Amino acid sequence: MGELRKDPILGRWVIVKTDGSLKPEDYEKEQRVFHQQEICPFCPGREDRTPPEIEAVRDAGSPNDSDWRIRVVPNKFPALDISGEIERRGVGIFDMSNGIGAHEVVLETRDHCKDFPDFTDQEMFEIVGKYCSRTKDLSKDPRFKYVLSFKNYGAEAGASLEHAHSQIIALPMVPKYVLEALEGSDRYYRFHGRCIYCDIIHQEIRDKERIVTENDDFICFSPYASRFPFESWIMPKEHQVRFCEMNDEQKYGLGKILKEIVTRNKLCLSDPSYNFFIHTAPIKYPHPEGYHWHIEIIPKLTNMAGFEWGTGFYVVPTDPVVATRYLRDIKVN
Amino acid sequence: MGELRKDPILGRWVIVKTDGSLKPEDYEKEQRVFHQQEICPFCPGREDRTPPEIEAVRDAGSPNDSDWRIRVVPNKFPALDISGEIERRGVGIFDMSNGIGAHEVVLETRDHCKDFPDFTDQEMFEIVGKYCSRTKDLSKDPRFKYVLSFKNYGAEAGASLEHAHSQIIALPMVPKYVLEALEGSDRYYRFHGRCIYCDIIHQEIRDKERIVTENDDFICFSPYASRFPFESWIMPKEHQVRFCEMNDEQKYGLGKILKEIVTRNKLCLSDPSYNFFIHTAPIKYPHPEGYHWHIEIIPKLTNMAGFEWGTGFYVVPTDPVVATRYLRDIKVN
Repeated sequence: MGELRKDPILGRWVIVKTDGSLKPEDYEKEQRVFHQQEICPFCPGREDRTPPEIEAVRDAGSPNDSDWRIRVVPNKFPALDISGEIERRGVGIFDMSNGIGAHEVVLETRDHCKDFPDFTDQEMFEIVGKYCSRTKDLSKDPRFKYVLSFKNYGAEAGASLEHAHSQIIALPMVPKYVLEALEGSDRYYRFHGRCIYCDIIHQEIRDKERIVTENDDFICFSPYASRFPFESWIMPKEHQVRFCEMNDEQKYGLGKILKEIVTRNKLCLSDPSYNFFIHTAPIKYPHPEGYHWHIEIIPKLTNMAGFEWGTGFYVVPTDPVVATRYLRDIKVN
Repeated sequence: MGELRKDPILGRWVIVKTDGSLKPEDYEKEQRVFHQQEICPFCPGREDRTPPEIEAVRDAGSPNDSDWRIRVVPNKFPALDISGEIERRGVGIFDMSNGIGAHEVVLETRDHCKDFPDFTDQEMFEIVGKYCSRTKDLSKDPRFKYVLSFKNYGAEAGASLEHAHSQIIALPMVPKYVLEALEGSDRYYRFHGRCIYCDIIHQEIRDKERIVTENDDFICFSPYASRFPFESWIMPKEHQVRFCEMNDEQKYGLGKILKEIVTRNKLCLSDPSYNFFIHTAPIKYPHPEGYHWHIEIIPKLTNMAGFEWGTGFYVVPTDPVVATRYLRDIKVN
């Protein structure tokens, strides 16, 4: 399995595969044969190719039979190991922990050839429901401090299988990026007495020019300081700390707007590879006033280069206002 | 040109191209025709295709003629604009600055088909010398706070031209990643009274197992908490705050070891795309005890995915000790 290691200068954690390390030749760019429905382990009838299911949506039948509509299974090749206790220790001046965590896969549909843009609103609602129920369940495990739901679509965004799926990872520490956002939003709250995310929403609604779409409960916009061209964020309009606290109406609204932005990206940008992830408060977080969950959706259009790696600056070749106009102009049902 | 914008939550800066934004179709994956020597603007005889040179190494002749061995020119499509004063202002709750900075290109050789592994030690010495002299010169401009030298090799690492080149960017603020490293190393220094980078070097020399190569002045190793498989760092063995303070012997030694690690990567990993960047202290930095310049070299072997973007965790499929063994086993001259 793996080991968690902390960079002693930056406090950044990495997961190092210490058993069965990949060899140089394993990285050689295989042109992934991606349309491999014949051997897809996520297709119905091949339930034995994944570990036994954790949850599922099915109209009839029993666990692990093939009559499912959505299935949640442990990742067969997990980044972290579900069993064991967390042990931290020093290695000279370095810090490490054994690689304990959960790594699950949400198979979003039976149909190998469908994805978000093809799903019904009800199907999207059920997928969002699985993100919530798995997050709630994993949050009960006292070993875990954070649960991240995310999706990789397309090989360039890190997907290794084509069949529509998303992933859920539970971690024994709050990740650095989330910690930084918590610090930033808490600092703002202590100074202004207001949630910075709520203030951003108000400014976007006032400015209008970066809003791609909205519905009763959610707003989807291109952030002022986007890192990537055509990046967009979805936020609940009402202050909400954790996404798994959504009621059914909100889950339905989130599914609808998530499908819509992915569809707009697909039509506008020639079906780009993309990532999205849900940033929500840590399992235990004592400052609910200042944090506000949201989703960041990043189409993969450019390559990170030395300048970005070296500085943390990002060069964004399309103004978010211009990106918004292109995305708005797309006709969706 | 562009605009610098600050993420109000994280304090991260981005450079947004507000004039002449790229359109959706501009991102469509062109299979870059990379062997385009016939039209290469960096080849000798085409000096008029770049802005006039800033510095050069030539045995005879005069500026901008074709008798050069190394040439430094302004980037024709700069990320930042060299002329103008820095103006910062607020946009509602957001912060921005106009996009002032320097963006230069080091043409490393006359020969379209050569790169680091083909260069002589003298040529590498001269390239390193250009990084130093340009950094020193740009550091005199009172508008700038940081100068970054870096190289992108291969399309997947963000290079847009094949002819061997590196880049130098001067910035009106210290980038977030550098600030974080300064904070981390300063915290360590205040607690231990020692430079953390010096301590890392001592531990690596004691452990031996992650050292890829070394010479009198430099060590090259796979960091314990690598973010990427086959990542390596070069550090001066003696405490040194700024890389442009190197003497000629050190510049020669750096050129040699930089060539060696790039050659080892090339042979070990089938000529991978890669980035490297030089992290040095900001132009004005009052704590010289705790910071230690170094180079990070990142072969592009994996794709960033939602988990990495969402957390700042990195999954490293090859143990740095294993990577070191593969890199050591490569035969180089």
